[in-house]
Amino acid sequence: MADKDSSAYSAWFGTGRLRKPSFKLSADAELSPLFAKELSRAIIIDDPKGISLDLSLQPSGSDALTPGSYNITSWDGRVMILGGDYSGLLYGVFDFVRRLRLGVDFLSATERNDVTVQPVVQHRALNHWDNMDGSIERGYAGRSLFFEGGDIVFDKERLTDYARLLASVGINEICLNNVNVSPRAALLITDLLLPDLAKIAGIFREYGVRLLIAVEFSSPLTIGHLPTCDPLDDKVSEWWRRQADVVYSYIPDLAGFLVKADSEFRIGPAALGRTQADGANVIAGALAQHGGVLYWRCFVYNCEQDWRDAKTDRPMSAYNHFHALDGHFAENVILQVKNGPVDFQVREPLSPLLGAMKQTKEALEFQIAGEYTGHEIDVYSDAVAFSDVLNSPVDENKQLADIIGADKDIIAVVAVAGVGRETSWTGHPLEQLNLFAFGHLAINPRVSAAPLTTAWARLTFGDDKNVIETVTNILAVSRGAYEQYVSPLGLGFMVNIGHHYGPSPEGYEFMKWGTYHRANHDSVGVDRTTKGTGYTGQYPAYIRDFYENLDTCPENLLLFFHRVRYDYVMHDGRTLLQRIYDDHFEGAEKVGEFVEKWHSLRGLVPEDIFIDVEARLKKQQQNANEWRDVINTYFYRFTGIKDARGRKIYD
Amino acid sequence: MADKDSSAYSAWFGTGRLRKPSFKLSADAELSPLFAKELSRAIIIDDPKGISLDLSLQPSGSDALTPGSYNITSWDGRVMILGGDYSGLLYGVFDFVRRLRLGVDFLSATERNDVTVQPVVQHRALNHWDNMDGSIERGYAGRSLFFEGGDIVFDKERLTDYARLLASVGINEICLNNVNVSPRAALLITDLLLPDLAKIAGIFREYGVRLLIAVEFSSPLTIGHLPTCDPLDDKVSEWWRRQADVVYSYIPDLAGFLVKADSEFRIGPAALGRTQADGANVIAGALAQHGGVLYWRCFVYNCEQDWRDAKTDRPMSAYNHFHALDGHFAENVILQVKNGPVDFQVREPLSPLLGAMKQTKEALEFQIAGEYTGHEIDVYSDAVAFSDVLNSPVDENKQLADIIGADKDIIAVVAVAGVGRETSWTGHPLEQLNLFAFGHLAINPRVSAAPLTTAWARLTFGDDKNVIETVTNILAVSRGAYEQYVSPLGLGFMVNIGHHYGPSPEGYEFMKWGTYHRANHDSVGVDRTTKGTGYTGQYPAYIRDFYENLDTCPENLLLFFHRVRYDYVMHDGRTLLQRIYDDHFEGAEKVGEFVEKWHSLRGLVPEDIFIDVEARLKKQQQNANEWRDVINTYFYRFTGIKDARGRKIYD
Repeated sequence: MADKDSSAYSAWFGTGRLRKPSFKLSADAELSPLFAKELSRAIIIDDPKGISLDLSLQPSGSDALTPGSYNITSWDGRVMILGGDYSGLLYGVFDFVRRLRLGVDFLSATERNDVTVQPVVQHRALNHWDNMDGSIERGYAGRSLFFEGGDIVFDKERLTDYARLLASVGINEICLNNVNVSPRAALLITDLLLPDLAKIAGIFREYGVRLLIAVEFSSPLTIGHLPTCDPLDDKVSEWWRRQADVVYSYIPDLAGFLVKADSEFRIGPAALGRTQADGANVIAGALAQHGGVLYWRCFVYNCEQDWRDAKTDRPMSAYNHFHALDGHFAENVILQVKNGPVDFQVREPLSPLLGAMKQTKEALEFQIAGEYTGHEIDVYSDAVAFSDVLNSPVDENKQLADIIGADKDIIAVVAVAGVGRETSWTGHPLEQLNLFAFGHLAINPRVSAAPLTTAWARLTFGDDKNVIETVTNILAVSRGAYEQYVSPLGLGFMVNIGHHYGPSPEGYEFMKWGTYHRANHDSVGVDRTTKGTGYTGQYPAYIRDFYENLDTCPENLLLFFHRVRYDYVMHDGRTLLQRIYDDHFEGAEKVGEFVEKWHSLRGLVPEDIFIDVEARLKKQQQNANEWRDVINTYFYRFTGIKDARGRKIYD
Repeated sequence: MADKDSSAYSAWFGTGRLRKPSFKLSADAELSPLFAKELSRAIIIDDPKGISLDLSLQPSGSDALTPGSYNITSWDGRVMILGGDYSGLLYGVFDFVRRLRLGVDFLSATERNDVTVQPVVQHRALNHWDNMDGSIERGYAGRSLFFEGGDIVFDKERLTDYARLLASVGINEICLNNVNVSPRAALLITDLLLPDLAKIAGIFREYGVRLLIAVEFSSPLTIGHLPTCDPLDDKVSEWWRRQADVVYSYIPDLAGFLVKADSEFRIGPAALGRTQADGANVIAGALAQHGGVLYWRCFVYNCEQDWRDAKTDRPMSAYNHFHALDGHFAENVILQVKNGPVDFQVREPLSPLLGAMKQTKEALEFQIAGEYTGHEIDVYSDAVAFSDVLNSPVDENKQLADIIGADKDIIAVVAVAGVGRETSWTGHPLEQLNLFAFGHLAINPRVSAAPLTTAWARLTFGDDKNVIETVTNILAVSRGAYEQYVSPLGLGFMVNIGHHYGPSPEGYEFMKWGTYHRANHDSVGVDRTTKGTGYTGQYPAYIRDFYENLDTCPENLLLFFHRVRYDYVMHDGRTLLQRIYDDHFEGAEKVGEFVEKWHSLRGLVPEDIFIDVEARLKKQQQNANEWRDVINTYFYRFTGIKDARGRKIYD
């Protein structure tokens, strides 16, 4: 699983399976050297099978394209790729290569191609949660690509490949260090570490990817040796300005900073009696002069809640902390909001803060790292999960995807990376899809999961119909199966403490994290309607009613929004309890089907991949069975009611 | 809490409070230099208030005393202390000093003193669980006194004080390193570490305390570079013999070795298809030639149990592994058996293995370290707990204390130390009692908890009646209170995972450690009778019936032995459920009383001790309230039945 064979990872999506690219644009030239600075904004390819290039052409059409956009046109046996800028052309070439591999016949006289792709949002960022000791918080794909032993340590060749990998799916910003900034990582904005960081910035720059730095709010005090980090103190704003100057002297195109403050024991403005806007604006002010933005995370909640306090409802926290401050944030502040109001659960409603602040820019934050979604052991498709999120309603006739865009509420899409030194980059060989899908969805949130999954499978495993069908089927079903055996009906956080893998139905029930389901002998779930904690009141009226009404509330969120008796009758006539049993049995059964299906691929996929996935599926089966039996037993012990179909539930 | 003031710890029990001793036998001579080798076996003290000594006397009476024994006689204004050997005299002097401080008037004409004390068992050992990195497994009193950074590192003065402290309560063997032997600690039996270990042995030797070494069963393979550690392989026995020679060349009076094998992922003979006797005998054989003993731990169980497997019952494990091997162990093997069959819980029955092997020597193992008993935050008297164990029945007319002795089933008494670098040695200032009591109970298992507690309190805090009454009352009540709010009715292991502090009613319920209570909507507990798992069948018939019969089974073990409905009526007419509620309310209330009582001592005990204990009591109160509310809510959620007295139970 470690990077034992550094030649075996995929250097970009669409270049065959998990291998270094051998695809060449011409017989002699590898693709990568073409992406040097001298590359212009158009490439004419006369014959994709024996390609020649004309780098001198500057067609006027390119001026109509915005930065990051591109056009691919084929006519008379020629293909022209136009880019709105350097990145656009880069993306165009990657897209062209992908289309070629997916079987588009650019030389056919009958097949006319004229495709223009324009990224919906300008900011498409990855957040690495890498620590400078080389570990990765919630990382399941090996150690950090950037850090080791407290220093910046990297393999230039591998980082170049990583930069190209990201460019191939349109990702254009990357934060290398954990939002939980260690004292050592706080020094990334100082002369001590910036020379090395600038080297990494240079590698990513070649592929149109700009760095972000996660910074520590208390830095004026801790590394600036000021008596305070109060954002309203002139010396503090002066310190941030000076430090930003230093940073930009090393990395002139830095995208900006990222801050986690007043959250999970990290200091923030609230600790000093200031608002979140005060805190964000002082740092944003320092970045503004350099064109940088400040991502300010909204993951602020009481992480020392008393479980006895049933009034405080953690999902309400982000909205409560930020909503009233609309209009108070500086122009270059982007509030970074997790997709759901709790914490990257398998299924949550949208955060009510998304789109709720009309005078404030927002970023939508996903998690690719499988913290709650299988730890790269259990197969889990984020293509499906992220699509579900993007298709969630934000009002009577709008979905989340509709309010994402350069001139809309949400101007950035971010994901926690989940990438490490492992061969596959992402850990589970099949979950490379998740990074691939994230990039595509950031470019266009309206793309569906299915074609993305098929495309990734073909680009990775080739065109064997059997293989593609099997892989896409496993991936398409994976999230639903996982949801069934881990967290059906919106019932989250029944996980083991700390690492969040495997079942512990009351693991968090009496803890301080605000994550309670309060199951008892007759009911389970939290009433979050206006008659309960009032959480639904944070949504627009239409959405509020949609969730409050048991007829319209999606069943996969039932227990998130409602406290329900076990004998409650679901839409299809089953009781809630039976539905819980059924989902856990079915989820585990589906994993059994994955195992069988994957077995049928022996000899059809590379043997190392086959063995790797097979081993993970075996562990997943154990995990799924454990979830099935623990959760079913948990509710059986409350109710004494057996499975209606006579399946085994342990005492 | 760290050893900030090394002059502030008590150098032995009975020398005032937590201070270095200033007590002197004569105006010029400190006591400690007297305990040099030239000290003979008798001391005549003419006047305890202005003492002079006659070290030349060799009274014939001393020959009648066994090693470790002593006699104190006073007549005509003179006091004579006789010792059966050097240690006996040492113990006699300490006892004399203690009696002086407790008010015995040795010079009174009317008060005739003639006391002979003879230790009931020869082996009175402490097991430190200290790691060579300086940490201590289950240690709550600071870092190791012996190790740091992988090396043997010690403060000679402090170790001398520690040796004297142990001698003052009759402890005569000590194992410094953890039974979970790290690769580094495995080298303690090699030339690499023995020179330093021998220095420590020398310090303890001055006070009659002999070292033990915890060794790793696989050492012939790992450090001996043999192809195996199979105990029946000649090269392996040869290796152990040679290594024992090396060890004894450095430490000629080493007491022996200690082994944890086939337990919690440690290699042992079972892994090689050999018996526990095979494993023990090969090492014991190597020690025999040097007069050493081998302590072989019986803490062997399946630590990867499936919770779904209701047939396997962890408490049965030690008996199952060892009982049939009676008669197969070498003469110098001592099987070390934890007092209870599970793992140092607040309340367990006696291990059925204790006294069950008529041809095998056994050691009774206690834990002073507060792993399950409050982590040195919650006050907890082992004086009470250990007395309860020693007074438990082993047959119709015998208690455990009756089968302890040089010529009886149990020839050694051992405790996991719980001592570290903190000022108080033991962490909680009041829990110094636990080490004091363990030593006294090892000398004489028939001593009661109450006089031990009073003696310790007076020796520590002086003679203020108010102080002594309060301290002894808190200590006397402490164990019962803790049991009520943590683990009433024999219901153990509802603790948080890993660290074992604080409540998590289902923390271990679905894990692999074999510790299940299987609570559901109508019942709780495990049926361990012959109709259930059959555990009770491991006891003699009288004891089996005693526990199986609900009329005779002590209520404090009810749920250990029986699965009981919540509406079961207890002896006093309360339901089981109400009794659970009551115990948790009462336990937490008692902690409130401790706080009040302790407050009344401000100004009457040294201020630093006052503050330290007050801070711990405050945390204990939080912990007790948390236990009360979590456990009551846990059972309330199962039953929906409120407290009969209307007290608050959260939903």
